Amino acid sequence: MGRNLYKRDDRDLRFVLWEHLKVQGLLNLEAYRHFAREDFDLILDQAQRIAADVVAPTFQDGDRDGCRFENGKVTVPPSFHRVWQVFKEGGWFSLACNPAFGGQGLPLTVAEAAQEFFMSANFAFMCYAGMGPGNGAMIEKYGSPALKALFVPKMYDGTWCGTMCLTEPAVGSDAHLVATKASPVADDLYSIQGTKIFITSGEHDLTENIIHLVIARIEGAPPGAKGVSLFAVPKIWVNEDGSLGEPNDVTCVGIEHKMGLNGSATCVLNFGENGRCRGFLVGRPGLGLAYMFDMVNLARMAVGLESVAFGANIYANVLAYAKERVQGVPFGKTQGRVRIVEHADVRRMLMNIKAVTEGLRALVFKAYLMEDLAKAASTAEERAAAAARLGFLTPLVKAYGSDRLYELGREGIQILGGYGFTKEYPVEQYVRDGKIFSIWDGTNYIQALDLIARKIPMEGGKVFQDWLGEVKGLAARARQDDLFREEASLLGEAAAALLEVVSLYEASMKAAKTDLISLTATRFLDCVAETAVAHLLLEQAFTARERLEGGATAADLPFYEGKIMTVRYYFKNLLPQVMGRARIIKLQDDSALRVPEASL
Amino acid sequence: MGRNLYKRDDRDLRFVLWEHLKVQGLLNLEAYRHFAREDFDLILDQAQRIAADVVAPTFQDGDRDGCRFENGKVTVPPSFHRVWQVFKEGGWFSLACNPAFGGQGLPLTVAEAAQEFFMSANFAFMCYAGMGPGNGAMIEKYGSPALKALFVPKMYDGTWCGTMCLTEPAVGSDAHLVATKASPVADDLYSIQGTKIFITSGEHDLTENIIHLVIARIEGAPPGAKGVSLFAVPKIWVNEDGSLGEPNDVTCVGIEHKMGLNGSATCVLNFGENGRCRGFLVGRPGLGLAYMFDMVNLARMAVGLESVAFGANIYANVLAYAKERVQGVPFGKTQGRVRIVEHADVRRMLMNIKAVTEGLRALVFKAYLMEDLAKAASTAEERAAAAARLGFLTPLVKAYGSDRLYELGREGIQILGGYGFTKEYPVEQYVRDGKIFSIWDGTNYIQALDLIARKIPMEGGKVFQDWLGEVKGLAARARQDDLFREEASLLGEAAAALLEVVSLYEASMKAAKTDLISLTATRFLDCVAETAVAHLLLEQAFTARERLEGGATAADLPFYEGKIMTVRYYFKNLLPQVMGRARIIKLQDDSALRVPEASL
Repeated sequence: MGRNLYKRDDRDLRFVLWEHLKVQGLLNLEAYRHFAREDFDLILDQAQRIAADVVAPTFQDGDRDGCRFENGKVTVPPSFHRVWQVFKEGGWFSLACNPAFGGQGLPLTVAEAAQEFFMSANFAFMCYAGMGPGNGAMIEKYGSPALKALFVPKMYDGTWCGTMCLTEPAVGSDAHLVATKASPVADDLYSIQGTKIFITSGEHDLTENIIHLVIARIEGAPPGAKGVSLFAVPKIWVNEDGSLGEPNDVTCVGIEHKMGLNGSATCVLNFGENGRCRGFLVGRPGLGLAYMFDMVNLARMAVGLESVAFGANIYANVLAYAKERVQGVPFGKTQGRVRIVEHADVRRMLMNIKAVTEGLRALVFKAYLMEDLAKAASTAEERAAAAARLGFLTPLVKAYGSDRLYELGREGIQILGGYGFTKEYPVEQYVRDGKIFSIWDGTNYIQALDLIARKIPMEGGKVFQDWLGEVKGLAARARQDDLFREEASLLGEAAAALLEVVSLYEASMKAAKTDLISLTATRFLDCVAETAVAHLLLEQAFTARERLEGGATAADLPFYEGKIMTVRYYFKNLLPQVMGRARIIKLQDDSALRVPEASL
Repeated sequence: MGRNLYKRDDRDLRFVLWEHLKVQGLLNLEAYRHFAREDFDLILDQAQRIAADVVAPTFQDGDRDGCRFENGKVTVPPSFHRVWQVFKEGGWFSLACNPAFGGQGLPLTVAEAAQEFFMSANFAFMCYAGMGPGNGAMIEKYGSPALKALFVPKMYDGTWCGTMCLTEPAVGSDAHLVATKASPVADDLYSIQGTKIFITSGEHDLTENIIHLVIARIEGAPPGAKGVSLFAVPKIWVNEDGSLGEPNDVTCVGIEHKMGLNGSATCVLNFGENGRCRGFLVGRPGLGLAYMFDMVNLARMAVGLESVAFGANIYANVLAYAKERVQGVPFGKTQGRVRIVEHADVRRMLMNIKAVTEGLRALVFKAYLMEDLAKAASTAEERAAAAARLGFLTPLVKAYGSDRLYELGREGIQILGGYGFTKEYPVEQYVRDGKIFSIWDGTNYIQALDLIARKIPMEGGKVFQDWLGEVKGLAARARQDDLFREEASLLGEAAAALLEVVSLYEASMKAAKTDLISLTATRFLDCVAETAVAHLLLEQAFTARERLEGGATAADLPFYEGKIMTVRYYFKNLLPQVMGRARIIKLQDDSALRVPEASL
């Protein structure tokens, strides 16, 4: 058992949920009326305790012991089994799942808040824990009644696990080109043949069975996306009465050796090597990719949450170190060694981690709230508007979160000095574990193209303009306010810069110079995300100010004071990057396109 | 034996040496007159071959096998021993060392060019290889004739190794506070007692002996830096005739478990646990720290070179992958999958790695050339000017290099996609191995303070102003030139931005608001470094253009065309960050200072 390095608290998370986004408003909706605010608090308190006491002690086991692969079998670190049992007993797998299938029916905002604690504690473990309910929800949504009854309850309660099988050796980002074949055997029953790679939780010993969701091409199906269907392929065959049958000819032929997430098995799976692998068609033929993207969107949101969760515990660990470690005399002074938290550069790095993590948390939970509203708001208009806003925010959450995490990791290691390079502190592991986030579930470049080519043009640009209108509205309000006048001006400038780039892109599009867009797409996504984060943080600053002006307890004062300083830090140190990048984008440099390949 | 992933070439390095910096000019100086240009070429060719064929195959061994610690003994990966033998037979340890003690007497520029290859191939191995000559040079410079004769030749030829022992458990950046004690035993002979941590190559089985250079405080010495002296402390006692005696009571009590550089032993050393550790005073008492900083400056320069070396092989590996891997249809097209080198975003990332690596190489070798000239130029004025420029460039080389490397690693991993997260490709190891660079040999914040508080004010600001004058001069020349007019304008803007920040800092200094300087110091260093790199790259662009206009062979055309595009890329994608950061610095945000500690 490794050291327990779980030090993070829940103060900002509670602020985001109950004070900033006022998630308790969901209690007025039909879907959540049977809950009370106390239920939410109780669940989060328990989750925080389980994360700290049960999950976190396995964080280093996942990294140090890792997964073992032998004779087609994967064994996870032994301590993971005990955590699995605790999750099973407490129903922690299925917080947001449908009660009709054994789930708890919580709003996503609350369920994902609990996940944030667990992900801080040991994300490698959560790679297994999230797969059953995630894939179960796909079957619940698209499968036949028989399939649902057979699979969903056991996937929600942790009896069985699941996987998403998209990637193949020659098919990474091009999911529509899958070569895995499905041949009809009986009604909705197919013989599956093919190889899938990079399959998270593809094989392990935590559950008696794994239900693989596999995209494959039915014999004779048209080429491209429209020929791709989705199949539920159990590792061990499931009889009609739900009992387990024979192994289903799914073989794990190896696991990847990775820079991080060693506790999470990343598998190469062969389906039907011996022609005896059977799978159930899920939903209608030809819609497999569309269905799968439901799940991919969830995964993209999760990447943002993972980044917040890592950032929170990085921050807590390096802050504790900075408050203890005595080193150096501050610049400009001639004597008096101080704790490093008193050095300006260390404070800058701390504020950087704090501001980005809190800003990203606001963005992530705003998006989750949209997801709850898209499902449960009272009117169709509200639901549609929330769904559209969610669509707009998803690529920001995924790409901005994952790219920033890598940078927060650098700051965290730097604060720890030489110790940061050693495995005594958890930051280096978070950096290694989290490096996959910018790649999986659609690379960050794909997120940027999704933003530019699909999300900004949604509804003729209305979704984007509505959001930008809110940003400008808040800037206008802040301009009337002595406390935030400079912030207002910077936010207005950022909004204007975004519009300029959008116009530039429209011109490039018309001129068929699309490569000029791709060249700067990832930087533009960062610009939009920083503006979105600044917008939400400024809302938080107003809330914090209200509390300071009346009603805050003495114990809460430092939090609100810190919040206002954090918002200022973000605005004056990070938000101006929007204008800097916009200037670079407007230079429209095409040297990377013009350079001959032979010159590279 | 691991896979050989050495793919880099030497074209840009040869361009920097012979075409841009014209290092062959050193052949006119007395110190190097006995060399010919052909000697240099031969040495570099051999070095490149040995790096590729002998050193590189051990790159993964260092990481995967790592060092083993048992009963006070450290064993390195077995394959390192064979490389050590090849270095010993070829005299590769001592390329730049004094021939009077068995060195080759090469200019640093040439010797370090050879090192660049070796560092690309396996830097963990080079951590051992560099320590003997580095420490030997200290003894040569400051030791008595007897000490020199006893130690230096064997440290230069790889018979013995060396270490720098500065850090102690409570003493990292505060080297002047060392607690290790030295008690006089006889003339220049002292009994040493204390613990040193983070000692690179502190114990290993590559050589029969290790000569530790240890800073310690002689009993009764004044507190602070003036009480610190330097001692040569052999692991095994060395008799007057050079033969080995008894073990000298130096005990390795453990090695660090690190995120990278696993092949390099980072040791905790106890000196004199049993009161039987003896060391020779090197030079005069009280000057230990000053002497040590000679070596630290060398190490800071080396950090830049390490970053270049890693960047070069990251680039070569991901370029090869990008030219082979077929995935995706370019944005804006409806069909036609392409190799990823044809995607604009991948090209951007490739150009980013190329431009930063080549720019940094120019900066590093410019600084090494200054070091050669500081030693060997004909007149005292030239030597002094070169020494001053070297002093100015050193913090840029160290901090800018190491921070950029982390970012290049991200780009490299991203180009490889999911494979980048696995250990099949070397980029993730370079990221892990290189993360220490921003920390050791003075954190990058210490570099920024060195730049601001010591280097810019040197000679009343003349050194900085002379450099800035050269930058402006080149910008003026480029402004007359159709091909580089935009670049000229950006360079002029960057130079002006630097001056503005310097004025702002002077005002903060006068107002005793030094914390405002520390808050932005690291960002200012990046601004200066980017301007310095842009200056050198623009020189290179002029050189490349001349070659293209006449004299370049057909085989060389792609290189020169690529060089001009690379320079444009740097100017239009990276240099404008100077103006962006300067704007942020000028906001003078002090939220990180004002935030109460309780709010963090």
